[in-house]
Amino acid sequence: MSEFFPEVPKIVYGGPTSRNPLEFKHYNPDEVIGDKTLKEHLRFSVVYWHTFSNPLSDPFGAGTAVRPWDDGSNSVPNAQRKARAAFEFFEKLGAPFYAFHDRDVAPEGKTLRESHANLDEVVKVFKDEQARTGVKLLWGTANLFSNPRYMHGAATSPNLDAFAYAGAQVKKAMEVTHDLGGGGYTFWGGREGYSTLLNTDMKRELDHLARFLHLAVDYKKQIGFTGTFYIEPKPKEPTKHQYDSDTAACLNFLRTYDLLPHFKLNLESNHATLAGHEMMHELEAAIGAGALGSIDANTGDPLLGWDTDQFPTSIYLTTQCMLCILGMGGFTTGGVNFDAKVRRESFEPIDLFHAHIGGMDAFARGLKVAHAIIADGRLSSFVTERYRSWDSELGRRIESGNATLTELEAYILPKGEANKNASGRQEMLENLINEFI
Amino acid sequence: MSEFFPEVPKIVYGGPTSRNPLEFKHYNPDEVIGDKTLKEHLRFSVVYWHTFSNPLSDPFGAGTAVRPWDDGSNSVPNAQRKARAAFEFFEKLGAPFYAFHDRDVAPEGKTLRESHANLDEVVKVFKDEQARTGVKLLWGTANLFSNPRYMHGAATSPNLDAFAYAGAQVKKAMEVTHDLGGGGYTFWGGREGYSTLLNTDMKRELDHLARFLHLAVDYKKQIGFTGTFYIEPKPKEPTKHQYDSDTAACLNFLRTYDLLPHFKLNLESNHATLAGHEMMHELEAAIGAGALGSIDANTGDPLLGWDTDQFPTSIYLTTQCMLCILGMGGFTTGGVNFDAKVRRESFEPIDLFHAHIGGMDAFARGLKVAHAIIADGRLSSFVTERYRSWDSELGRRIESGNATLTELEAYILPKGEANKNASGRQEMLENLINEFI
Amino acid sequence: MSEFFPEVPKIVYGGPTSRNPLEFKHYNPDEVIGDKTLKEHLRFSVVYWHTFSNPLSDPFGAGTAVRPWDDGSNSVPNAQRKARAAFEFFEKLGAPFYAFHDRDVAPEGKTLRESHANLDEVVKVFKDEQARTGVKLLWGTANLFSNPRYMHGAATSPNLDAFAYAGAQVKKAMEVTHDLGGGGYTFWGGREGYSTLLNTDMKRELDHLARFLHLAVDYKKQIGFTGTFYIEPKPKEPTKHQYDSDTAACLNFLRTYDLLPHFKLNLESNHATLAGHEMMHELEAAIGAGALGSIDANTGDPLLGWDTDQFPTSIYLTTQCMLCILGMGGFTTGGVNFDAKVRRESFEPIDLFHAHIGGMDAFARGLKVAHAIIADGRLSSFVTERYRSWDSELGRRIESGNATLTELEAYILPKGEANKNASGRQEMLENLINEFI
Amino acid sequence: MSEFFPEVPKIVYGGPTSRNPLEFKHYNPDEVIGDKTLKEHLRFSVVYWHTFSNPLSDPFGAGTAVRPWDDGSNSVPNAQRKARAAFEFFEKLGAPFYAFHDRDVAPEGKTLRESHANLDEVVKVFKDEQARTGVKLLWGTANLFSNPRYMHGAATSPNLDAFAYAGAQVKKAMEVTHDLGGGGYTFWGGREGYSTLLNTDMKRELDHLARFLHLAVDYKKQIGFTGTFYIEPKPKEPTKHQYDSDTAACLNFLRTYDLLPHFKLNLESNHATLAGHEMMHELEAAIGAGALGSIDANTGDPLLGWDTDQFPTSIYLTTQCMLCILGMGGFTTGGVNFDAKVRRESFEPIDLFHAHIGGMDAFARGLKVAHAIIADGRLSSFVTERYRSWDSELGRRIESGNATLTELEAYILPKGEANKNASGRQEMLENLINEFI
Repeated sequence: MSEFFPEVPKIVYGGPTSRNPLEFKHYNPDEVIGDKTLKEHLRFSVVYWHTFSNPLSDPFGAGTAVRPWDDGSNSVPNAQRKARAAFEFFEKLGAPFYAFHDRDVAPEGKTLRESHANLDEVVKVFKDEQARTGVKLLWGTANLFSNPRYMHGAATSPNLDAFAYAGAQVKKAMEVTHDLGGGGYTFWGGREGYSTLLNTDMKRELDHLARFLHLAVDYKKQIGFTGTFYIEPKPKEPTKHQYDSDTAACLNFLRTYDLLPHFKLNLESNHATLAGHEMMHELEAAIGAGALGSIDANTGDPLLGWDTDQFPTSIYLTTQCMLCILGMGGFTTGGVNFDAKVRRESFEPIDLFHAHIGGMDAFARGLKVAHAIIADGRLSSFVTERYRSWDSELGRRIESGNATLTELEAYILPKGEANKNASGRQEMLENLINEFI
Repeated sequence: MSEFFPEVPKIVYGGPTSRNPLEFKHYNPDEVIGDKTLKEHLRFSVVYWHTFSNPLSDPFGAGTAVRPWDDGSNSVPNAQRKARAAFEFFEKLGAPFYAFHDRDVAPEGKTLRESHANLDEVVKVFKDEQARTGVKLLWGTANLFSNPRYMHGAATSPNLDAFAYAGAQVKKAMEVTHDLGGGGYTFWGGREGYSTLLNTDMKRELDHLARFLHLAVDYKKQIGFTGTFYIEPKPKEPTKHQYDSDTAACLNFLRTYDLLPHFKLNLESNHATLAGHEMMHELEAAIGAGALGSIDANTGDPLLGWDTDQFPTSIYLTTQCMLCILGMGGFTTGGVNFDAKVRRESFEPIDLFHAHIGGMDAFARGLKVAHAIIADGRLSSFVTERYRSWDSELGRRIESGNATLTELEAYILPKGEANKNASGRQEMLENLINEFI
Repeated sequence: MSEFFPEVPKIVYGGPTSRNPLEFKHYNPDEVIGDKTLKEHLRFSVVYWHTFSNPLSDPFGAGTAVRPWDDGSNSVPNAQRKARAAFEFFEKLGAPFYAFHDRDVAPEGKTLRESHANLDEVVKVFKDEQARTGVKLLWGTANLFSNPRYMHGAATSPNLDAFAYAGAQVKKAMEVTHDLGGGGYTFWGGREGYSTLLNTDMKRELDHLARFLHLAVDYKKQIGFTGTFYIEPKPKEPTKHQYDSDTAACLNFLRTYDLLPHFKLNLESNHATLAGHEMMHELEAAIGAGALGSIDANTGDPLLGWDTDQFPTSIYLTTQCMLCILGMGGFTTGGVNFDAKVRRESFEPIDLFHAHIGGMDAFARGLKVAHAIIADGRLSSFVTERYRSWDSELGRRIESGNATLTELEAYILPKGEANKNASGRQEMLENLINEFI
Repeated sequence: MSEFFPEVPKIVYGGPTSRNPLEFKHYNPDEVIGDKTLKEHLRFSVVYWHTFSNPLSDPFGAGTAVRPWDDGSNSVPNAQRKARAAFEFFEKLGAPFYAFHDRDVAPEGKTLRESHANLDEVVKVFKDEQARTGVKLLWGTANLFSNPRYMHGAATSPNLDAFAYAGAQVKKAMEVTHDLGGGGYTFWGGREGYSTLLNTDMKRELDHLARFLHLAVDYKKQIGFTGTFYIEPKPKEPTKHQYDSDTAACLNFLRTYDLLPHFKLNLESNHATLAGHEMMHELEAAIGAGALGSIDANTGDPLLGWDTDQFPTSIYLTTQCMLCILGMGGFTTGGVNFDAKVRRESFEPIDLFHAHIGGMDAFARGLKVAHAIIADGRLSSFVTERYRSWDSELGRRIESGNATLTELEAYILPKGEANKNASGRQEMLENLINEFI
């Protein structure tokens, strides 16, 4: 099993005092926290596109990635070799899941038929490797944004043919995902938005987007695929504006077009911050609607205005994520999917290990910290206590929809002024979090 | 009528060649554009808070405003004199509408009862002045954010009494608005959000906010108030996060809690940009949902991260606004409400005139430009033509929900590739806009 | 000594396992790290303005602060009582330093003479309290931004009288600082900038600012004040643009006007991020120029566009600060000055303690982590090794200015291509930092 | 001359009422404004990289550009054909200047020697075409950022060989620029910065950057090149931080290393806004230091955080630029260089014409508006009058460095308060600008 990373051992847990950069300091997969092992809680997933298909180019420079298993050709055998390298990586890392787009894993052909055939050839290797290693597919998806045919959108293209082509591509990607036993299928609408409103009929495009998703819902039923459908918000980039801009925009769209029962959200940290929200906000907003499905774990640079997709290393960020995820009872089909890429300057294969080890350790720590905060109970008690006045008779009347403004006036006018507020104690609570970090 | 601005004449239309800063260059109220006069199209409104109650302080400095009619006392007579000054201003400016919060116009008393009484005394002056001048109330509202009682929110406060107090305040403000013949009533939730998620039960707070709005809807019916209810998005400031963060968040909230039939949106340019959107985006998003009601006309500074509430002077911005508003058929109860303030360094009464004249001229030009672009027809023809492929048999099948992915695949597989895209021509369309400016 | 905070004990070190929110978990003042105690390394300072003079208002709401020692009057006795409360706070907290503006501590009079007299009365209390407690003045400064007289700037005002008044105010503030044995004097130009370039002669204003600072340098010499002069960058707020926008802008200004020998920089984290820089960047930029003097310790919210001045609690931030500060050999006259305020919702006196304890603990941890990273040596070895190629003959020739382009061409042309790059290993280094947190 | 754009006529001036998108509405090259023709004032330049070498890819999608003259090969004949297409474009457009990087125009070879040879072959075509058309080279430059060899920087690389290679590349690019009679040579340090400070010795890197520029200064003298050296600020992208982040950072760097006499600044609008500044601010900052050389004309999208490099169409922006440039007396060797690219969706050759025509018309209008504002005189009179108090005896003493703080105190103490401020009249001045638009 050491064909592609011969000098890298299986990554093992060395514990917090280890100084070996190729050991986990905190991710001990079989350690039990609460009612589950770390592995079951975190359900780590490696993304194919950044880890195995990204040349590490940027808008000002060519790719730098050194990937000895990739001969640079656009051939099926090269794609198959890349697939085997990927599974060796998943296995050595101990990642139980992976995720991919159709076009990451197999070369696009001259026709759609040829592309389908190429994909099938690689999927065979995936099936073998899944069987060999036990690694599973967290979710599949179709790339509907890179090819120039999608320059004006896929489901929202003014060009009907782009919509049709995208539909056929999604059909195939769903079939492949189903075939591989994938736990879900994700819709990220990278070009579903606009560059300028001057040439755009936004309402008609949104109607088309909804039709597109309904077609997928119908086909899912038809083929008996029972995985989760995820929709993934991002506010901009590549387009000036992407319709699924944040959790609220996605939920509003899904509600408008009667799609909410069929979709959950896949939330990404860097997309949250690009939309002006903290990841924790987006998570809570989705959880409040019963719609959180999975997360794309990464981090942005708050001083840069694009999707840097960096590996998450801040324990604060991972703690916040895990507080929310434990709070909703953990993942079902979703997981912690590292939609993250090494920097262009970290171009060697070994950097892929450093990056994932760091992200996995950061999430393992976040899980432990979050679990300890919940077990400690002070934080949640503070919050419960803060809303205590609502557990009164009047509070219940209001919450159940039985009060009136007249009644409220009758209550408050004689008092003249409201009861005093209590301090929000933000600083004390921030210190409390630091007690556990 | 020259008690308060003795040196300022009635502002008249001088035409584009006028060099008199106290004349309109473009706003000729009775000029007909399309089927209406400029006055009817634009429905300009002056806001009481910025123009008559803002001392022009900022977080680093004391107020600078010189307002000779204001003796600085917190008395009812002072408030009444301010009211008369305001109407003299509206009249000289030729603004047909105004808008106010309860606490802008009358001093807060030691008890709510006293505050109500103070408000009543000023409202008497408003009624007289409305009758005298013909100026009307665009909408009223209650200030539920300045008093420390609302530090943690009003409808979303963990303190039940703050909710009750806010309810009583809204009840009174609605009554007053109804009494003054107001065309609408606005809900801007300045403190309906959070400073930190650590101490916040977001779901429970949102439930409370929805209950609060339902109480208002019920009371509106009860008293027979037929004006429009507006909800106004803003993403942050004063809070770290405000629940009604943008159009999509408002629509999602309204849909979630069955409030959409009862509310329209009041959109503000500076709030749009703080949320990361162009004003035109927010307008189109609201119009697409049939939910645009009114606009708060101002502009932000894209390089500053707070609500600068500057007067709008960019013809590009006003043209975009008016393209959307003409596109939806114009305002009904809403209008162009200048939620804008003079700079702290523009502290003299005359600056209030310069500022409003500039804003009104900018919107008058925007209206004329937008009307000319629509009359010209090239822009809308381009957009219609761009989606032409959807007017095919297959397009109609998809749009009407009768297609399947299998059918799309059967269409595109034999073709192999989609029909070519056409250029989006963004640069040509931007040049086209410039032809009219 | 318990007149003002009767229920708060002297804050002591309880160690990492303490669950008492009023104990330090990490700041053990007499613990030795390297060659100094924590107290000597960190030189904590409390700011008078936020902690004792800020009512916790914001642009949308009135002050919320409950400060029992403050009767709300603008009187000297009230100011003196506030001063005694402040020193009780400093003492209970164990803060060895404080900092103030002239107008924080004593009421502004009707004339400058009266203001001077008021200040003198409070300074007497400061002298007594300094003697009693041993608390020292880190630096003094003058508030040249709050009074409307400074609306257009102080040193950069188009109004000569504002410049003159500011000069007299600085003269007095320097005398008082000198009299109190202050270690430094800070210039933050809150209004030294512009609201619009349309009315501004930037070049002339910068010339005036330089003249102003030269006047202060001259007067410093004249009175024999030997403390450090600090200049403090901030890019905006309250003005649209502040001339001392970041480290580079300050250094360029100081170099242009021959002021660099007389000034060091006082860098604030939140000002750095508002300018688009990481605090670590600003620190390194100042240290590289030999110009870092002191820091204003706080943090901003990267998703908000104004100076939130929050207490720093991120161990990452404090570690980065202390890596830089230890790297330059520690503070001389400067220190860690908490230019931070409690949230408007944290309005009780006890919140002032929570906030400072959290900040002090965060910096104590940052110091310990940074010291451990330096002692470990892997990080600095990596950096040294990375530049190894420059320690060649050719590297030395270039660095000493003895090479030519012709020589470089002669070296590289025959090689054809450069030697290979090594990976930047950013992810591995981020993991390394996490080993110590 | 119609080999490459056979359907596009020579672009002529049609005047403001023309509805022909392929005519200038405002740019009448021979029209005289003040003392010069529009052509002489504006000195328009087309950039080779965006217009002839950019495939219109983005980080999420492949190139879309349709360029019939480009066979996609990396051959010299293809590059030569592209060169002839470029000159046909310049000529039809009526652009008097162009600009290029070495690697835009000729393919990079396997060795540096081969790259030099390839460049020489294309330069021959440039010489012929310059002679044929009269089009001149505004400035040349070397691409020191795209090749992976420069991943860690060129002049600031930790890899000495990258520095040496860059030196040799600059040497050749300067020779070629000199040979073509170029008016200047530009240094944009796209990779001269860092991705993380953890692996970076910032001080040593800045020293190297300064050495690199000194080498270029020396070589310039040696070969007798008398064109202007430009340095171009940009704060970030591709790197996390670029050393030449804004005007102030460039000036500080140039002053620190005694390079200021040898360099002027080339300022780009989109780079200014990415750095948090208005273009007008950067222009004034450079002009104040006598260091403005040329501009890269484009615009960013204030809601997007990357360099969108859009064509400038806002008359406000172009007016502000031209107010500054006319104010400094116009360009000498510099010009209005369109460092701008068509959108990825505007992929046809004709879009290149639309884009440039729009940008040229926008700048022509900006020039006319700015000239009219200056001729009108009200704006400059207002500014002069605003500083009138400084033209007093005391003002002169301060400005000439002869005052003291004691003297200022003696002046203001007896007065007690400063003379009143005048309103800044920002709104009135913004209206005044609108009078001319």
